[in-house]
Parts: sequence; structure tokens; C-alpha cells
Amino acid sequence: MQKIEHLGIAVRNIEESEKIFSMLFNAVPYKRELVESQKVLTSFLRTGTGKIELLQATAEDSVIQKFIDKKGEGFHHVAFAVSDLRSEMQRLQKEGFQLLQDEPSPGADNKLVCFLHPKSTNGLLIELVQERAKPLLKKNI
Amino acid sequence: MQKIEHLGIAVRNIEESEKIFSMLFNAVPYKRELVESQKVLTSFLRTGTGKIELLQATAEDSVIQKFIDKKGEGFHHVAFAVSDLRSEMQRLQKEGFQLLQDEPSPGADNKLVCFLHPKSTNGLLIELVQERAKPLLKKNI
Repeated sequence: MQKIEHLGIAVRNIEESEKIFSMLFNAVPYKRELVESQKVLTSFLRTGTGKIELLQATAEDSVIQKFIDKKGEGFHHVAFAVSDLRSEMQRLQKEGFQLLQDEPSPGADNKLVCFLHPKSTNGLLIELVQERAKPLLKKNI
Repeated sequence: MQKIEHLGIAVRNIEESEKIFSMLFNAVPYKRELVESQKVLTSFLRTGTGKIELLQATAEDSVIQKFIDKKGEGFHHVAFAVSDLRSEMQRLQKEGFQLLQDEPSPGADNKLVCFLHPKSTNGLLIELVQERAKPLLKKNI
């Protein structure tokens, strides 16, 4: 695994949180993107070499809504960049880590992603992300 | 603020967690350090440009023990590097963020640190860290 690519933060109101994190990092959000498969609206800010991904649910049955109902706003996951997602998934599976998916899936910000089960990582929800060669057509809003 | 300097992960058993995170990151822990003022034993692993700081309580009244009793193991805080901690503290205070301390305090891994109250940052516990010019004498164990 390479650098910390981004931190995912669950928020109730993405507009309010964009203001808070803009002030915090003295930076402006550079992109909003809807991830329809996850029922989540994302917004990205740069923080040096890493990024903050704000996550707002777009439906009651979104994983983010369930997370906030249970734990409140705050840290949701950390994403680490990998150069070869499939080989890293294989390596981690051999090491005994539990993957939340068998195949890479498309994530926000032009990535292929795979999540690890937090039970095998001391409660930490980890996302592995690999940059996609060709941009996907996504709904920018 | 600059890059994500480290993620702090609250764990019950630092030896077991060192094994888990070593396998995860294909890296070895490079330092253990006791932060006596916080009653916490820390262990660091490198992950590309950032670090993971494992945090184990050394006493029942440690903030880490209280955190684990309430929320379980997992993400505790994220630290961002700053070049001038005092000026960043002043800037954030003017912006309306609540600091958990009036003065910088010594942190692990040769840093001066300041925490922000998570109530003003969407539930995210943020630590600002500035590299110290001269190493402090710390107990390496």
C-alpha cells in the first residue's frame, strides 16, 4: 500500500460541512460527485498530499445514513492508494483479512476500490483505491 | 495545514495490532514510545507519505481506555502537519473552531501538538502537529 489517499467523513449536511472543512484547511472543495450505487453524495477537498471526502447520504437506506444513525457524524473510512488492486486484494486475503467484496468496484473520483471488513483491522474501515486509466462518465453536480 | 501526518488508531493490545497492521501495510513498526502525560503507549508504522499511530492505554483512566470503553477499537484521531502551530491555532480560533488546549503540548514522535474539539469539526478529532527542532528525551521501550 502506498500513501493515505483520502479520509472519508460522514456528514449530515454537505453544504455546511464544506464550509467547515474549507475554513479548516484554507482550501475550497474542488469536486462534488454522486455515487449512485452507494446512495451517497461526495465532496472533495485537498489537504497537502491527501484528500478529505465528505459523504452525505442521499437516501434513508444509504450506508452513510445508517452509519450516522448509529455513530453520528465523523470519521467513516480511510483510503490507501495501491498500484495493483487485484494483487493487493489477493495478498490481503491470503494474510487472513476479510474483504467486503470479491471484485473491485467503481468508486468516486475515478477510482477502482475495495473495502476491507473492519472486524479484521481493529475496527478501522479501510478502502483500497487504484486510479483508473480512463475516466468513467460520472454525474458531476 | 499540510499533509495528513498520521492516523491514530485506538487498540486494546498493541502487540497484536502491530502484527495486524504490519501484515496490512507490508511494513514493520519502526518505533514504540510511551507518552506518559496521556497514559498511552504508541507504536508507529509508515504508510507511504503518512503514518499509522497505534494507541494502547497504560491505565484505566487513560483517554484511550475511555474511548475504547465507549466506542471500541478503531479510528481515534487524524493528525495534520503544520509549519507554524501557534499561528495555525490562532487562525482556527478566529474562524470559530474550539481548541482543546490553549498552548501547544509535546506529543509522540518529536512533535508539538494541539487538538481541536470534535464538536466544531463534524465529530472528527483533529490533531495539529509541528515537528520540533530538537528531539525531546523520550522513553523508548
